[in-house]
Amino acid sequence: MKQILALNAFDMSAAAAQGGALAARLQQRARLFGAASVLFYRQPLEFVRAQGCWLYDTTGTPYLDAYNNVPSVGHCHPHVVEAATRQLGLLNIHSRYLHPGIIDYAERLMATLPPALSNIAFTCTGSESNDLALRLAAKFTGAQGVIVTEAAYHGNTESVSMVSPSSHRHWRAPAHVRVVPAPLGQPQEFITHVASAIDDLTLHGIKLSALLIDSIFSSDGVCADPPGFLRAVIDAVHRHHGLFIADEVQPGFGRTGTQWWGFQRHQVQPDIVTMGKPMGNGYPMGAVLTRPEILKSYCDEVGYFNTFSGTPVSAAVGQAVLDVIEREDLIGNAQRVGNYLRDGLTKLASRHATITQVRGAGLYLGVQVTSAVTAESIINALRERRVLIGAAGRLGDVLKLRPPLCFSTQHADTLLGALNEVLASADPE
Amino acid sequence: MKQILALNAFDMSAAAAQGGALAARLQQRARLFGAASVLFYRQPLEFVRAQGCWLYDTTGTPYLDAYNNVPSVGHCHPHVVEAATRQLGLLNIHSRYLHPGIIDYAERLMATLPPALSNIAFTCTGSESNDLALRLAAKFTGAQGVIVTEAAYHGNTESVSMVSPSSHRHWRAPAHVRVVPAPLGQPQEFITHVASAIDDLTLHGIKLSALLIDSIFSSDGVCADPPGFLRAVIDAVHRHHGLFIADEVQPGFGRTGTQWWGFQRHQVQPDIVTMGKPMGNGYPMGAVLTRPEILKSYCDEVGYFNTFSGTPVSAAVGQAVLDVIEREDLIGNAQRVGNYLRDGLTKLASRHATITQVRGAGLYLGVQVTSAVTAESIINALRERRVLIGAAGRLGDVLKLRPPLCFSTQHADTLLGALNEVLASADPE
Repeated sequence: MKQILALNAFDMSAAAAQGGALAARLQQRARLFGAASVLFYRQPLEFVRAQGCWLYDTTGTPYLDAYNNVPSVGHCHPHVVEAATRQLGLLNIHSRYLHPGIIDYAERLMATLPPALSNIAFTCTGSESNDLALRLAAKFTGAQGVIVTEAAYHGNTESVSMVSPSSHRHWRAPAHVRVVPAPLGQPQEFITHVASAIDDLTLHGIKLSALLIDSIFSSDGVCADPPGFLRAVIDAVHRHHGLFIADEVQPGFGRTGTQWWGFQRHQVQPDIVTMGKPMGNGYPMGAVLTRPEILKSYCDEVGYFNTFSGTPVSAAVGQAVLDVIEREDLIGNAQRVGNYLRDGLTKLASRHATITQVRGAGLYLGVQVTSAVTAESIINALRERRVLIGAAGRLGDVLKLRPPLCFSTQHADTLLGALNEVLASADPE
Repeated sequence: MKQILALNAFDMSAAAAQGGALAARLQQRARLFGAASVLFYRQPLEFVRAQGCWLYDTTGTPYLDAYNNVPSVGHCHPHVVEAATRQLGLLNIHSRYLHPGIIDYAERLMATLPPALSNIAFTCTGSESNDLALRLAAKFTGAQGVIVTEAAYHGNTESVSMVSPSSHRHWRAPAHVRVVPAPLGQPQEFITHVASAIDDLTLHGIKLSALLIDSIFSSDGVCADPPGFLRAVIDAVHRHHGLFIADEVQPGFGRTGTQWWGFQRHQVQPDIVTMGKPMGNGYPMGAVLTRPEILKSYCDEVGYFNTFSGTPVSAAVGQAVLDVIEREDLIGNAQRVGNYLRDGLTKLASRHATITQVRGAGLYLGVQVTSAVTAESIINALRERRVLIGAAGRLGDVLKLRPPLCFSTQHADTLLGALNEVLASADPE
């Protein structure tokens, strides 16, 4: 299965054409970062500062951020910056000394989750979280089979890359991995695909270890409805003694509105929850939550220690993020503004044949358009109108709208107005 | 091979005996963090602030830090804190937008390394760095065989755990991994062990991908001398078309004195260099440096992107760390104070039969003692005298002295005085 490695990527062969200082910077960057260097857009953007939902370029021009979910409570939120600053100057040390910060943070975070998930291991990234989660599942179940969706992305370690089809130019599933189509068009068919995958593993003598999914199906192209469609799927996984790993790197921390966690939309019980991106609003931190017996089965044999995680600084930052989510009612805001934005997009869809479906929940919306070429043109045309969005989907034909959670209805109007203009132009190229 | 999973670890069954609020905190922590929870010392320490080489407990009592290498330029160094603070409030975003910060930092860091290593990929942790390095080596060589030392620790991802014998209670080498004894007593024999390991891989039809070593042999128990003993080893690896991955997480950033990088002590050329711990003085950041063709062979097939790395914040922090190393001549200091400390330890060895050997370079010293029980007693007795050190070695019988690089001769005197007292007591228990 041949795939696009990076959606909306700048083509470095166009660097010289950018001219002057920019061309020189682009070439310098390519020389230093080599094959791993990826920049967004046909014409790359350089930002110097950011606040709330706005990024400012070198000329001071503001861009509306409807894409970035890492600065989830808003770029450079002063409460988070203040917490980081205070603790960075006081104490920043690993967790082998006692410190109340990380204990209190763990208690508070855990209170947002089902009580069965009563153990936590901190990491630095979502990749590290999923890497550990896969091992916990394999050790606890004594099985190797993993099921993921066909354009899934779960992180960048070796083990997690092996269950992230979208990371590979030529994807060939390892023997223990089965991929299923994401439930984009027909969510009710998802159970059939997962059941077939379990059967196929069985046929090959491979027992099921885990279903690893992100309940918003982010990189597959976004799917949230109908709420509850995952229930039968998770039941099937549990019947076959597999674990459900809920990757909350994308839908977690209130993004889908009305609840803290994406899986709660479907009223299902994960065995392991993994966290990353929005957890520290940009400070590198992640976590794995699970039942004590699952953590114990692994840690009795292998020592898990993560130097940079569970520090007083990550605790202070994590607390500040939770403070802001609560104080500013960002979950309610995600729901309200998400609905408003979704309604606006649905209206645009009724006027423009380019949009074929609007999907998502809260402030995680996927807008299905007619092709990847169209999606890329829209994304670049919006960039010219100073609005940032991204692409998703196996084919790259979905617009990904995933702004900071402080996105307002006014921000939504700006986005909708710009998108309407782009769609109204005869040729969005 | 049965091993100790965590040296100098607190025994949680002793929690209740700590009494009162401390016992409650310990039990709360154990409940939350479960099997992954490890604390240092027979009686855990709780710190509230730190500066330079000093950590302060809840009563304000200072402890001399002769152990922690993450806050490498000194705990909470104001220049680093200031850089982090400024950039956290300005812009903290991933590297798919152009930003001069990370480009300039990459240039500056690279200038400290051999020019052939002209590509860099940023990560968040040393674990992520080694995880990527192993894949680069495997893809470039088309081979799987990896050689590591028998008590090596290279990180916590699944793939890196498989080449980290010291992480496993019952170590069984995977088919593609060979372990060799660390060159502690007889460095000149190391080449023989590595050559045998290559032969054994060949015998099993496994080609050599990489020798992955930390040139100070940190977790094996510290070995630095004689300078250059690694040359024949690296030559043998290259003759067999394998790559040398220099894990600089421990010896890097000037710790071994006189040079920036541990491998430079041996005048050898790594194919891949990995970085972590001291790079951000506690801010989670790491890197992989290699030749462009090695990075390209992997990245052409698999997209590598790391959200939290290569950000303007990590660039600002990384620059500040380099500033401090240069301005405060910390490499020279590591050499001068390291020699002073080593001389002092050698004098102690001549008076106390408990010490059988002193090894190391710069401010990375290993003190071989008669047994692991003795090492643990000394470490805990030093804690009572408010000096922090750690343990190393496959058997846990080496004292690990690895202070922040701003350690002074006065600090060294304090450490030496306390250690002399402990050794002089009839029974250091």
